[in-house]
Amino acid sequence: MSKQLPLVATESQCCSPLTREPLSEDQSAELARVFKALGDPVRLRLLSLIASHAGGEACVCDLTDAFDLTGPTISHHLKVLREAGIIDGERRGTWIYYRVLPTTLQMLSSVLMTTA
Amino acid sequence: MSKQLPLVATESQCCSPLTREPLSEDQSAELARVFKALGDPVRLRLLSLIASHAGGEACVCDLTDAFDLTGPTISHHLKVLREAGIIDGERRGTWIYYRVLPTTLQMLSSVLMTTA
Repeated sequence: MSKQLPLVATESQCCSPLTREPLSEDQSAELARVFKALGDPVRLRLLSLIASHAGGEACVCDLTDAFDLTGPTISHHLKVLREAGIIDGERRGTWIYYRVLPTTLQMLSSVLMTTA
Repeated sequence: MSKQLPLVATESQCCSPLTREPLSEDQSAELARVFKALGDPVRLRLLSLIASHAGGEACVCDLTDAFDLTGPTISHHLKVLREAGIIDGERRGTWIYYRVLPTTLQMLSSVLMTTA
């Protein structure tokens, strides 16, 4: 599972702030993939629960109580976040522990930064 | 057209950085709506063209040449960005001039900011 690499952060020098220069087609395709993964309320809450969890990581056992959703549904959303390079997961014993990939979040944050 | 208000920025004090505390259901619904609007390559390129355009605004006449898309398709994408509170548009003479709403971009940027 930890073989899933943060594609956006590692494969390109993506990207300058939007206010500085236009995105190329490739850059916008890369970024759109990550923003699309964030464009869902359940995934955003999952991400915030993981990101703000003590120690910076959370297992599914820490996450399910916050939702009225089945385990497989939560696993699906975690997979989408992982495939977008936003979180990573590592199996330790019974559980997979998830943590955010700060380089991806920081990249998105920089792209959206304005000087205003 | 300029009656479209930036809902996210004006209606709530959304949101602390994801790494600080979990999002509420309402906050994640609000944010997901904006990220979903950004989750499309054409919309991201349009946004970057507007944001980086001289004077901070651009009319459709400045945008269409960059795309192999029809006018109505581009207008549709601009409408999605506008309804998400990411850009605003103002008619002056023949054209509608679009500019980014920096409070929305700044809010998104802050939410994604990490301390790592």
